[in-house]
Amino acid sequence: MRDVSIVGLGQIAVGEQWDKSLRVMGAEAVLASLRDAGLERPEALYVGNMLSGQVSRQENLGALIADHAGLRGIEAVKVEGACASGAAALRLAYIAVAGGMHDIVAACGVEKMTDALSEETTAALVSAADAIYEGEHGLSFVALNALLMRRYMHEYGYQRQDFAGFAINAHKNAVSNPYAMFRRVISAEAFARARMIADPVSLLDSSAIADGAAAVVLAPTEYARAHGLKAVRVVGSAIATDAVALHDRNDLLFLQAAHLSAQRAYAQAGLGPQDVDFFELHDAFTIMSALSLEAAGFAERGQGARLAMENEISLQGRIPICTMGGLKARGHPVGASGLYQVVEAAEQLRGEAGANQLQGCRVGMTQSIGGSGALVVTHLLERVNG
Amino acid sequence: MRDVSIVGLGQIAVGEQWDKSLRVMGAEAVLASLRDAGLERPEALYVGNMLSGQVSRQENLGALIADHAGLRGIEAVKVEGACASGAAALRLAYIAVAGGMHDIVAACGVEKMTDALSEETTAALVSAADAIYEGEHGLSFVALNALLMRRYMHEYGYQRQDFAGFAINAHKNAVSNPYAMFRRVISAEAFARARMIADPVSLLDSSAIADGAAAVVLAPTEYARAHGLKAVRVVGSAIATDAVALHDRNDLLFLQAAHLSAQRAYAQAGLGPQDVDFFELHDAFTIMSALSLEAAGFAERGQGARLAMENEISLQGRIPICTMGGLKARGHPVGASGLYQVVEAAEQLRGEAGANQLQGCRVGMTQSIGGSGALVVTHLLERVNG
Repeated sequence: MRDVSIVGLGQIAVGEQWDKSLRVMGAEAVLASLRDAGLERPEALYVGNMLSGQVSRQENLGALIADHAGLRGIEAVKVEGACASGAAALRLAYIAVAGGMHDIVAACGVEKMTDALSEETTAALVSAADAIYEGEHGLSFVALNALLMRRYMHEYGYQRQDFAGFAINAHKNAVSNPYAMFRRVISAEAFARARMIADPVSLLDSSAIADGAAAVVLAPTEYARAHGLKAVRVVGSAIATDAVALHDRNDLLFLQAAHLSAQRAYAQAGLGPQDVDFFELHDAFTIMSALSLEAAGFAERGQGARLAMENEISLQGRIPICTMGGLKARGHPVGASGLYQVVEAAEQLRGEAGANQLQGCRVGMTQSIGGSGALVVTHLLERVNG
Repeated sequence: MRDVSIVGLGQIAVGEQWDKSLRVMGAEAVLASLRDAGLERPEALYVGNMLSGQVSRQENLGALIADHAGLRGIEAVKVEGACASGAAALRLAYIAVAGGMHDIVAACGVEKMTDALSEETTAALVSAADAIYEGEHGLSFVALNALLMRRYMHEYGYQRQDFAGFAINAHKNAVSNPYAMFRRVISAEAFARARMIADPVSLLDSSAIADGAAAVVLAPTEYARAHGLKAVRVVGSAIATDAVALHDRNDLLFLQAAHLSAQRAYAQAGLGPQDVDFFELHDAFTIMSALSLEAAGFAERGQGARLAMENEISLQGRIPICTMGGLKARGHPVGASGLYQVVEAAEQLRGEAGANQLQGCRVGMTQSIGGSGALVVTHLLERVNG
């Protein structure tokens, strides 16, 4: 297998993009990533997206976005892994370049969530869960996370307010990110007062409905070197799965697929949690942050929330997370989020993270979760000349 | 890149599978393919599906079907390329094995079209086309094909009845296929009398709404040889794209993506149309058969329909097509069809096609079309010891 690098980054602002359709958003991100790489035409484009069929009545996104980006003819296809769709598209792009099928491949994540009424989008999001055993019974995606959070609080003795640090950190880091949806700080008091959505998950535990698109261009590291491209190496890449329904899991409070995919990525890279300088994790809900930190090896079981309470997740902390605002504050256009995470991690490793730059960072981890933990994609990225 | 072979085949009967859910159908096909290969656990599973979100409110199919097949934990993801989703899943599985990422990978196509009212499924199918410029204006998928067929008849001087041979051949070949939906012959008279759906496309030009699932297992050819597995080599594999909307195409009556993907597959295999013994093409509508034969190099432009009129597409003809019934008569559960084609082609090349066996066939081509020609996947398969 060949060593592979990210050589181009593209993203558009996350938010309610009323003036941009799916195809416009996707093409803008892809073209931005190609411009950043100084390349014109990839051999393939993998598009991560979850909701386009249900929300916009549009499938065949691979062909649609390839065409709208001026790339008609190339290999292109849509990849779906619920909220981890964008990261899964990157994984398949990585396989194609590492294995030698293609040299230049773009991976794009795009999601248009505002093409329908918000209750319709909320209903569509449940399709990430088990339609027959969870969706049919009326569970929303927030409710699934509420079940997990309540159980976590019960088992380990936490209060709602103990999760405030996750949201506060995300919002703080979003302030200087020009692509973020919520560029304002929030206080512990605001978190305490936040409107309840599905007890104990409040508005400020939750990421919002949003539109967005992000993309990266991959190439063999040797190619990047020969052509003088800015490169960030992909040193670990993995997808793992678990039961879709919560009640089918062996252990409700341990994200087995997150653990497995992290272990596979660590093994590939020859690294461990102690080597990771920052972690772009899947903070769709605060409980997911706690569980991800535990599954990926940054905290003992039941101790993930403590990292937020002790502020170890800030830019100056032991394990900075959501360094550009995370899903909570940069925004969570579901199928695009996995690639926003990777774009942001690559910015950190290229030293281009502006006011949020982590000094001397060498290794970053990204982890994207599809469903309540059913499909998890983990990548380990490393600075070149690191 | 490594030489790759298909070492396991699985399929369930196509039809209205009222007693089987998406997960049951997908798992049955995957498990059948693994049993056929004599293998227990693939390293990855790529699931081709188009409509699960819209029709069954279920996404995250990769994880869902992996789990239901007893494969919890493995890499799994859903791949969408409209009606070519199954073939696209095979393409990505091929890349993973050929490039050395995995040794054993399963590709599955599954579609449950009867979970909604047929008018809802018909509306969902339009998402394969351009939602804004075609779907919004009320074009159904049948109507898009009607536009193409009318234009073809106008340009080249054909009558409706000249397409009868495609449907007659498909139905004839389905009679001995135990997995086919319509196991009965139809006459030219029946074709002439068939109810009009969207003039000039009649009921007997069209494939029906159906449920189904098919799967294959891939392994390196060397592995297959070392373990004594029945193998069919994948010697060509390609995806190509074109504009999604008909009006954006450079040439309405030439399937550019079908041409491009066939050319790429031919180039990879070092073969041409003259080397192909049979062609499992995408006969969702009779007009698609004519256009595919032309784009893949089996007929001059405007002459594809003539192959049916002259019965050159039968099992005894110059280029047999739809040898087990095709989309028309075996049935067209959209995201699964691409893998039914591959399973059937592999049966022919293994000499296991029963009453429909083509004597001495060595090379088979499969081609699956997503949308009205926007995304096309072509594979060339070759008999081992051929």
